[in-house]
Amino acid sequence: MSYPKALEDLIVEFMKYPGIGRKTAERYALHTIRAFDQEGLDRFASLLANVKHNVFHCSVCGHLTDIDPCSICSDSKRQPNTIMVVESPKDVFTIERSGKYRGLYHVLHGAISPLNGIGPEDLNLATLWTRVQEKRIEEVIIATSATQEGETTAMYLQRIMGNMDILITRIGYGVPVGSNLEYADDATLSKAIENRRKF
Amino acid sequence: MSYPKALEDLIVEFMKYPGIGRKTAERYALHTIRAFDQEGLDRFASLLANVKHNVFHCSVCGHLTDIDPCSICSDSKRQPNTIMVVESPKDVFTIERSGKYRGLYHVLHGAISPLNGIGPEDLNLATLWTRVQEKRIEEVIIATSATQEGETTAMYLQRIMGNMDILITRIGYGVPVGSNLEYADDATLSKAIENRRKF
Repeated sequence: MSYPKALEDLIVEFMKYPGIGRKTAERYALHTIRAFDQEGLDRFASLLANVKHNVFHCSVCGHLTDIDPCSICSDSKRQPNTIMVVESPKDVFTIERSGKYRGLYHVLHGAISPLNGIGPEDLNLATLWTRVQEKRIEEVIIATSATQEGETTAMYLQRIMGNMDILITRIGYGVPVGSNLEYADDATLSKAIENRRKF
Repeated sequence: MSYPKALEDLIVEFMKYPGIGRKTAERYALHTIRAFDQEGLDRFASLLANVKHNVFHCSVCGHLTDIDPCSICSDSKRQPNTIMVVESPKDVFTIERSGKYRGLYHVLHGAISPLNGIGPEDLNLATLWTRVQEKRIEEVIIATSATQEGETTAMYLQRIMGNMDILITRIGYGVPVGSNLEYADDATLSKAIENRRKF
């Protein structure tokens, strides 16, 4: 016996999310019917239908925002001459949560990946060049992921901006704080040794 | 820095699902913005808003359906005098998938749980008594969960129907097929020994 069509359609929607397989999607669809009343369903539906109208990319840095420019770009208390380049809005939220950075951001919305056909022209780079040239930027911190794609992107950025009068830095990679050395993988250990500093 | 309000609201909706914590909900909300186009969002929203209109409980057995009576209750090829009592629609889908049962169902939509204030009057029982008395039912198979609540519900059903002229059975509980004895917990082992049969 198969699910009623409206339920099956909902299962398919949940399966579009990362890490949600058929069984979990079935559980979520059944939970939707059981746990939400009609008012709750209408509310969830309206949030989904309107989320792209209410949340969009900042025209300056590309971060997700509901005002333009975003609250980071328009915050006069932040250092205006440092830009941290990240792959996704999620990275901005993560770094902001640490509270350790007070400069600006630039969100690329991806990373260069020749295998997936993603080149520099697919990233949010045009406005980065404008900002770097027009805004007296002194330092660009490249905080792309420690993956093949992140490294490729970092190297590309370094190549383009290397001859400008800007300090280009890359965030540190190594053994995570609080983690036991024996659990670190070879690539992380190799990075950690490469990035060693005088004690 | 906090999330834009529309994004935060969406995160809260995802956190209403079982097993979804704050971090996962954030990931799903960001995925919603990144991976869905407006057409996809409208489709998902419309499915959510309409699911309770399109899928409802069968007036006979209580199972989820988009026609009334449901396709199982109205299937003349199924054994009309056997009813399997289960806690939730999910259980019906699970048993149907096994293909090992050709009778009818009755979905209680819960189990008796004094601790949570759920008594027999909160379950879909009125129509069960009607069916049992009016439809020449010969066997009622109690397939509630092997939990405290499921056992309490099973005992309640046995008490009510025990003096009727109906065979009341309970599905077998024990070591799952294909599983190693050493991984079975004590309660399952105890059930398995109690339910032993002549070899």
